[in-house]
Amino acid sequence: MTYSSPGRFPGPGVDFGPAEQFFRQEIQLANRNKGMPLEGMRYDITPVGMHYLLAHFDIPDVDAVALRLEVAGLVKRPLRLSLDDLQRRPKHTLAVTMECAGNGRALMDPRPISQPWHVEAIGTAEWGGTPLRGVLDEAGVSETAVEILFTGLDRGVQGDEIQVYERSLSVEEAMRDEVLLAYEMNGRPLEPQHGYPLRLVVPGWYGMTSVKWLASIEAIAEPFRGYQQLGSYRYTDTLDDPGEPVTLQNVRGLMIPPGIPDFATRVRLLEAGRVTLRGRAWAGRNDVIRVEVSVDEGATWDDAKLDPPVGPHAWCGWRCDWDAEPGRYTLIARATDSAGNTQPLEQPWNAHGMGNNIAQRVEVLVE
Amino acid sequence: MTYSSPGRFPGPGVDFGPAEQFFRQEIQLANRNKGMPLEGMRYDITPVGMHYLLAHFDIPDVDAVALRLEVAGLVKRPLRLSLDDLQRRPKHTLAVTMECAGNGRALMDPRPISQPWHVEAIGTAEWGGTPLRGVLDEAGVSETAVEILFTGLDRGVQGDEIQVYERSLSVEEAMRDEVLLAYEMNGRPLEPQHGYPLRLVVPGWYGMTSVKWLASIEAIAEPFRGYQQLGSYRYTDTLDDPGEPVTLQNVRGLMIPPGIPDFATRVRLLEAGRVTLRGRAWAGRNDVIRVEVSVDEGATWDDAKLDPPVGPHAWCGWRCDWDAEPGRYTLIARATDSAGNTQPLEQPWNAHGMGNNIAQRVEVLVE
Repeated sequence: MTYSSPGRFPGPGVDFGPAEQFFRQEIQLANRNKGMPLEGMRYDITPVGMHYLLAHFDIPDVDAVALRLEVAGLVKRPLRLSLDDLQRRPKHTLAVTMECAGNGRALMDPRPISQPWHVEAIGTAEWGGTPLRGVLDEAGVSETAVEILFTGLDRGVQGDEIQVYERSLSVEEAMRDEVLLAYEMNGRPLEPQHGYPLRLVVPGWYGMTSVKWLASIEAIAEPFRGYQQLGSYRYTDTLDDPGEPVTLQNVRGLMIPPGIPDFATRVRLLEAGRVTLRGRAWAGRNDVIRVEVSVDEGATWDDAKLDPPVGPHAWCGWRCDWDAEPGRYTLIARATDSAGNTQPLEQPWNAHGMGNNIAQRVEVLVE
Repeated sequence: MTYSSPGRFPGPGVDFGPAEQFFRQEIQLANRNKGMPLEGMRYDITPVGMHYLLAHFDIPDVDAVALRLEVAGLVKRPLRLSLDDLQRRPKHTLAVTMECAGNGRALMDPRPISQPWHVEAIGTAEWGGTPLRGVLDEAGVSETAVEILFTGLDRGVQGDEIQVYERSLSVEEAMRDEVLLAYEMNGRPLEPQHGYPLRLVVPGWYGMTSVKWLASIEAIAEPFRGYQQLGSYRYTDTLDDPGEPVTLQNVRGLMIPPGIPDFATRVRLLEAGRVTLRGRAWAGRNDVIRVEVSVDEGATWDDAKLDPPVGPHAWCGWRCDWDAEPGRYTLIARATDSAGNTQPLEQPWNAHGMGNNIAQRVEVLVE
C-alpha cells in the first residue's frame, strides 16, 4: 500500500501566496465544525456527537428558562412562548436527513474558500418538537405576509455585515406539516451546538434553513434580503451575481468506504473476495429510486438494492455486492431521484460551492 | 472590520506542488475528527458532542453484548470480562480534561502534516467506569511483567504497518488509582466515536493513551515497540529519530475568544469598555498555579483569578478584567504549573508536532 508518511511544509520564509492564508482559514473552520465520519452511515439515526454541524458564528449561551420565542410582525395575535409553553403543545418526532448546502465544496476546482467539506456534512437525527404550523395558526398570519423570518441568537460578521443569523421561508413552505420547532434531538434536549434550547427543522431543505438557537419568528410583507438569504446560499457564477437561491437538497448517495483506511490518505485497503458495499441515499423532497455503483471509472454500473427509507424525510440504505479482485480501484456511487435527477460525474461548479452533488469516488487497493 | 471575503483557489492547471496534496489530507482528517469550539470552555463538563475527538482509523462497529475484555499475558488468572461483569464492579466517576498530543500542531512552522489542530483538541468529560487496578489485581500481574498493553478494535494502516491501535503503560502507571475502564461519558453509555462500549481513560496523559474500543489488556515482559508507541507520539527533531516518548500533558491555558467572530477569519469584534476575559487551564499531573494575560504582545502581563479545578484531574476556570479601548490587539494567555513550567511564547518545534503548548494568541478588533 502506498502510504504518504507525514511530511512537512517548508519552513519560515517560504511564501505560499494567498493559498496559505486561505488554507489556514479553512482549517480553522474545519476544526470548529464537524463532519460525520462516513462509517456513521451504518446507523439509521446518527448519534448526536457524530451528526454534522455547521455554526457560522459562536455557539451562544442561552438561558432556556428565560427564553421567550417571539411570534410577531404581520400576525393577528403576537405570541411570546416559553420553552414550557412549546413543550405543552402537540409533539411530533421526525427522522430527518440534514445536509449542509456547502457539502462537497472542497472538491470543486477552482475551490471556493469557506468551510471545506468533502462529502461528510450530513446526518440523520430524530428531531422532537411541535409543528410550526400550529403556532403560526394560533398567531394568525395576515394575508399581507409573504414570508416568515426566523432569527437566531448567534451573532457575528459575514460579508462585511454585523448580523444575527437569519433566514426566511415563504408562508407556504413555513406552513408545511413537517416543519418543526424542535427542542429534542434523538430523545434528549438539544446539545448547545445543535441549537439548545430551540431550533427550526425544515426537512428536505439544506441545513442553513433550519435556524438554530431560535429567538423570533416574524411574518413580513416583503421578501427578506439579509446576508444569509441574498449574500450567500446562492447558485451563482460570480460572487457578485445574486444568481438563484439554494433551497431543497439535491439527490446524493454515499458509500461507507469498505475495508480499512490509511491514516493520512484515507485510501482503503481491502482483502480480495466478495464484499457488500453499503451506504445511504437521499433526495430532498423527492424519493431515491436508484443507486448505482461503478468499479471501472463509470464504464459499467451495477444497481444497488435499496432499503425502505428510515422515514418520509430521511435517507434510505443501499447495498451492492462486489467480487473484488486484486488491483487499484476508484469506486463511484451515484443516486437518481424520482424527478429523474442523477448525480453528475463532472462537477456542477458555482462560486459559493453550493449544492455540489458530484458522485462520490472512493480509492481502494485490493490485495 | 477587515473581512477576507470568500475567495477561491486558482483554477485547473495551477500547480501548488506538494502543498495541495497535504492540505487535502489535512482537511480530510479535520472533517472526520472534531475540535471543541473554544466557547465550549464555558461548561465545566463538555457536552459529549462538543468534546474533541481523534480516531486514527475507522470508528468500529462493536457488539457490546458479545464483547469480552481479555486480560491475559503475564498474569496468574487470565480473565474474560463481559460489559455486565465490568458494570458489576465498583464504579468511579471522574471529571478528566483530555487533550490530543497533536494539539497545536498546525501552528508550528514548518508545519508537520497530520491532523491539523490549532488549539481546540480538548474537552473535559465525566467518565464513569471501574478502576483498572481492581481488574489487574484480580488477574494477578506477574512480577516479570514490565508493561501493560492495551489493544483496541480499530484497525488501519499507518507508518506502512497494518495494525490495530495499541498503546502500553508501565505497570506502575497502569496501577494508579485514577486509571479507569470507562463505559460512560457524562452519565450515558459512550457514543460510538468515543469508544463504545469500553475504553481506557488515563487522566493526566495525552489522549493517545486512553485507548478506545478496548478489546484486550496484556501484561508483557518487554517494553511494547508498536507503531503508536515508537513510530509516533515521540518528541523528536526528525521523523527517523526515536527521540523521547510523549507522556503527560504540558501546562496550557486557553481563552474563550471575547466578542463576536468574523465567519472566515475568526478575528473578534469587541465593543470598547470593560470585558471579563475567561478561559480554562490544566497541567497534566501538576496543578495550575498561575494564568497571565497580555494585551500588548507580551510587554506586560496581568494575573488572572483562578477558580478551583473542576476536579483533581480536570481544568480550572480563570478570569481577568480588561478595559478595552479602541484598537487592534493580539491577546495572549499563558499558564504556569506547580512544577514551574510556563507556556512558551516561541514554538517548541518537533517533527511530529507533539505537545505544542505555545501561548494562545487571539486577534481582537475593539471599536
